[in-house]
Amino acid sequence: MKDKVLISEVGPRDGLQNCKGVMPSAVKMRWIQGLYDAGLREIEVGSFVPPKLFPQLADTAEIVAFAKMLPGLRVLALVPNLRGAKAAIEAGVTSMGFPLSVSETHSIKNLRQTHDQAIENVRQIAALIAEQPEDSRPEFEGALSTAFGCSIEGHIDERQVLSLAERLVTAGVDELGLSDTVGYANPKQVKRLINKLRGVAGADKVKSVHLHNTYGLGIANAFAAYEEGIEVFDSSQGGLGGCPVSPGASGNIVTEDLVYMFESMGVDTGVELGALMDCRKYLEEGLPGELIYGMTPNAGLPKIYASLD
Amino acid sequence: MKDKVLISEVGPRDGLQNCKGVMPSAVKMRWIQGLYDAGLREIEVGSFVPPKLFPQLADTAEIVAFAKMLPGLRVLALVPNLRGAKAAIEAGVTSMGFPLSVSETHSIKNLRQTHDQAIENVRQIAALIAEQPEDSRPEFEGALSTAFGCSIEGHIDERQVLSLAERLVTAGVDELGLSDTVGYANPKQVKRLINKLRGVAGADKVKSVHLHNTYGLGIANAFAAYEEGIEVFDSSQGGLGGCPVSPGASGNIVTEDLVYMFESMGVDTGVELGALMDCRKYLEEGLPGELIYGMTPNAGLPKIYASLD
Repeated sequence: MKDKVLISEVGPRDGLQNCKGVMPSAVKMRWIQGLYDAGLREIEVGSFVPPKLFPQLADTAEIVAFAKMLPGLRVLALVPNLRGAKAAIEAGVTSMGFPLSVSETHSIKNLRQTHDQAIENVRQIAALIAEQPEDSRPEFEGALSTAFGCSIEGHIDERQVLSLAERLVTAGVDELGLSDTVGYANPKQVKRLINKLRGVAGADKVKSVHLHNTYGLGIANAFAAYEEGIEVFDSSQGGLGGCPVSPGASGNIVTEDLVYMFESMGVDTGVELGALMDCRKYLEEGLPGELIYGMTPNAGLPKIYASLD
Repeated sequence: MKDKVLISEVGPRDGLQNCKGVMPSAVKMRWIQGLYDAGLREIEVGSFVPPKLFPQLADTAEIVAFAKMLPGLRVLALVPNLRGAKAAIEAGVTSMGFPLSVSETHSIKNLRQTHDQAIENVRQIAALIAEQPEDSRPEFEGALSTAFGCSIEGHIDERQVLSLAERLVTAGVDELGLSDTVGYANPKQVKRLINKLRGVAGADKVKSVHLHNTYGLGIANAFAAYEEGIEVFDSSQGGLGGCPVSPGASGNIVTEDLVYMFESMGVDTGVELGALMDCRKYLEEGLPGELIYGMTPNAGLPKIYASLD
């Protein structure tokens, strides 16, 4: 098993998008700076979506510009269409992600796109990326949302996940991510689907998972994915997040607890947990009253932490 | 991997023992009845300890008598010494457990027993059990507390766990349990220690784990243990619990989330999750103001639950 993993912090995008309040840009920047100082080297900082729909992310271009100044930080953003991709390229993202919902009902509610329309958008975005100069060309990930179940459609057929994965690759994405948008996944299913997906797309295209903790299985699912060789884990400080169009979809996995799990297993995350926990103050400052999760921050660093084997 | 596991509910003992309030006996009985009706078939209902120290468990003999009337229920209690064991036998428990802390400092604080004194107590209890008529002879488990770390001593040497396990077997316990009393365990460590313990004690003696969720890894640790063939899992409704002499040791793993994990993986627990969640009302009634954990109860049963594969 890998002795190093990459934690991809999605709080400033997935987290904030699902909060009622709007975090002021200045606090958002201090938060991102804090996360970077704690050792995080990949942060999803926003979405290039209509500001009217998501006022929480209206400052995404400005936040990307800020984050790009932090040396070595991979700066990610979501894009739902060609217009968003153009804005993301202009802002200078390291990588952009397109969220393709395996549940077509969810896709229509979330992006107002059928599967055919979504795949066509992916094709157009990939073509735009291919036109960029090689030294500034962003990476492009296709995220298979609701891959483990959908709170609208319910059960999701794994053959549908694999078929859409193939279409995403044909349309031009560089990598695929498996997203448990509503927290329905269980560890056995996580292992099975990772292996099936690698079977059709190749192991080099399947490196990341995006898990939620809605039913308390998020960290167990992350461990299961780690056992299968996954090396990039999305998570959110304080477990912020959910899904705006999925009822009951609360909470990404908590970055603090995820870092604790890996570090306590001797797996390097590059993150200093004490400094990371300190960053919760920005959530309290910028989102007063918001429910913040996390067992490790409540318990405090354990006595063994400094001397972990 | 096993297609069936046994959930051993420890809320009425480990849970209540760590609550400030005292649950009235009548509520406790309704709670145990509710858990039984939801399908639980093993419940740790109390400890035979001085009522002055643990007023929450002062009614243990009465509760055992009540629980024994529920057909097919395995009724467990903790005993710290021969006097407790005599009371447990008189009350008619199915099984008794002796908590041997691998951390000797913790053992002295918790039981006022050095390791030598504790092993001598185990020997005396085993001798007493051997004298009982075969058809009413209770089982006897040695629980290796603080096996994964101690919030007083810190790191625990695995050789110490194995050496005490051998002494427990020699002194006469039927089975061994691994307890993460303060929640320090990680999934890798859980797998490693289960295998090492089986190496010295035999697989037939190592069937159960007792995990806490202090750092959010409880369910991941349970999955890791399941992958190693463990078939009995302690947990507590609402994640009640901790350890009275271990600073920061909050919360057993939440029964509701644990049942959800197994059932969603197609592993039979025999527990009806909706009925189990309904039993939280007894906690609210009998322990007003107590912090109750659980992601699944907050989210509600997912759309896929009725049709789980």
